[in-house]
Amino acid sequence: MARIAVDAMGGDHAPGVVVEGAVQACRELGVDVILVGDETRIRGELVRLGAADQKGITVRHASQVVEMHEHPGQAIRKKRDASIRVIFDLVKSGEADAAMSAGNSGAMLAAALFVLGRLPGVERPAIVTFLPTLEGRVALMDAGANVDVKPLHLVQFALLGEVYVRRVVGIPRPRIGVLSNGEELSKGTALTRSAVEILSRHEGIDFRGYAEGKDLFSGDFDLVVTDGFTGNVVLKTAEGTAWAFRQFLKRNIEDSALAKIGALFMKPVFDGVRKKLDYAEYGGAPLVGCAGTVILAHGRSGARAIKNAIRTANEAAGALGDASEEITLACERAAALMASSPAEEA
Amino acid sequence: MARIAVDAMGGDHAPGVVVEGAVQACRELGVDVILVGDETRIRGELVRLGAADQKGITVRHASQVVEMHEHPGQAIRKKRDASIRVIFDLVKSGEADAAMSAGNSGAMLAAALFVLGRLPGVERPAIVTFLPTLEGRVALMDAGANVDVKPLHLVQFALLGEVYVRRVVGIPRPRIGVLSNGEELSKGTALTRSAVEILSRHEGIDFRGYAEGKDLFSGDFDLVVTDGFTGNVVLKTAEGTAWAFRQFLKRNIEDSALAKIGALFMKPVFDGVRKKLDYAEYGGAPLVGCAGTVILAHGRSGARAIKNAIRTANEAAGALGDASEEITLACERAAALMASSPAEEA
Repeated sequence: MARIAVDAMGGDHAPGVVVEGAVQACRELGVDVILVGDETRIRGELVRLGAADQKGITVRHASQVVEMHEHPGQAIRKKRDASIRVIFDLVKSGEADAAMSAGNSGAMLAAALFVLGRLPGVERPAIVTFLPTLEGRVALMDAGANVDVKPLHLVQFALLGEVYVRRVVGIPRPRIGVLSNGEELSKGTALTRSAVEILSRHEGIDFRGYAEGKDLFSGDFDLVVTDGFTGNVVLKTAEGTAWAFRQFLKRNIEDSALAKIGALFMKPVFDGVRKKLDYAEYGGAPLVGCAGTVILAHGRSGARAIKNAIRTANEAAGALGDASEEITLACERAAALMASSPAEEA
Repeated sequence: MARIAVDAMGGDHAPGVVVEGAVQACRELGVDVILVGDETRIRGELVRLGAADQKGITVRHASQVVEMHEHPGQAIRKKRDASIRVIFDLVKSGEADAAMSAGNSGAMLAAALFVLGRLPGVERPAIVTFLPTLEGRVALMDAGANVDVKPLHLVQFALLGEVYVRRVVGIPRPRIGVLSNGEELSKGTALTRSAVEILSRHEGIDFRGYAEGKDLFSGDFDLVVTDGFTGNVVLKTAEGTAWAFRQFLKRNIEDSALAKIGALFMKPVFDGVRKKLDYAEYGGAPLVGCAGTVILAHGRSGARAIKNAIRTANEAAGALGDASEEITLACERAAALMASSPAEEA
């Protein structure tokens, strides 16, 4: 079982829900958790939860916190004892197998890069997020770490994501697409066309060309690759559309007595759909390409989301623990294919 | 009443549904429609619809059609008598006030630029599309015409869109945002940051800074501006999410007898939400910035969508007919602000 270093001070409802999620994870999943942060407050929460002597939980005091308004890079450099930085020290020293935080995602990225650094060959670590499809789920990468990217970065996202989806999700040969505004190869931007040209020449992967926004949910792809700007916009658009759909339904239901009865009969259905679309079910989002396992959780995470993010950290640490060399080879391969590109659009 | 030149041969179900939608538009909206395409087939459809002598409908024979697989630019140059090109000839000669087609959108853009050209000062005409919000609708621009854009283009999209939303939708002071991956001005790409810097210095508009994907549906913005790549991805993601939501509901309903009864009671509610989200309700998408009114309709348009696209063409022709000078001034203003930018990131 993996040992997960958890930033107890990170997230909108820290440390309460973080400690609660960590205790749940210990009890239900049997993982070991190191809670990093203000020891007095963390111990107080453990007592409140009747988990003062919970097996598998240890507390590591950290005296500082990075606030939301601080410049991530500067704060991480200055605050050597910030909880969001100490979790990475524990991974680096071998005391933990993975680091997880629901805190400021900019600070999380900065700390991961500053303390752990990138694996050899990796230009830009990137975030994987999962969206529900009709039959399962699809990985979207990059979900927000890298806003202005080059073709080589996009190609590496595809190969980093391929390793993650194959080893952690367990899909032997992930079907990969590059997000675009149309299926034809003449579509896309200079960036996507260049990435597609390179990926098409990579014989070791199941590359399917362009994926459109609507293809995210069809189940035709296991991994869709894009830059972090578009990835973020896509995630928030999907979240917003699902929210608007529910609001439209709710308003129309309130206008009709018959519909109110119908909605009552349908409550389990609505609950099921909500659960299917709920980010909390999916746990945290891994940052792939660092020298260590890193999981970002949503700032709004409740205890269940924290527990599921620790589950993700546990699964990723187990499946990726010995993948460093494979990732380096994949990224060097990408650079070699890029260098031999006839287009050289990069 | 405006005279609308309609490409009778454009769209997946042409000419049947196009002629049907045009006849409906004549009867219900009182507009004049010039149906452009294969005269024999068009007259056949009119007879089938009992509209052989429909007042307000005229037929203009065009002997050629641009096929989906053809290169848009080349096809438009070569095929001088293609229906999708002749509709613009009619606008240029003053025989029609607006052109509408549900055909190949690449050919539509190429023909609009080739025959009508841009208004003075406009760098890149762009497509406006509307999404439903809780209280009304929001314009998204560019919805797909320009994939690789510069800051000046994004700034001009905001100003072109502002004119459209103010004059055609009738919102006196549209609230404008630039689509981004976060609200803080430090977010976004080099492109969006540069555009935001320019728009912030424009005192004549209600510019609200960045809008996120989830803000599209909140009702906080009347116009959200982005490049055509991201715009297309956003539209298709929203479409895909709504589709997935309906599929999840449907599957869960089928698994429960009680839920089936509930769904029956809720049928009017579901129909209302479907109608709210249905692109066909919104009619076509205007291409703004050309020397003439241009409306693109969805390739999958049925008769109702065609009718609504003709309605949009009629409204746009009426409200934008004398806006050419205003658009030119707005775009020249954008270029002047750009030139005086301290950043000069363009």
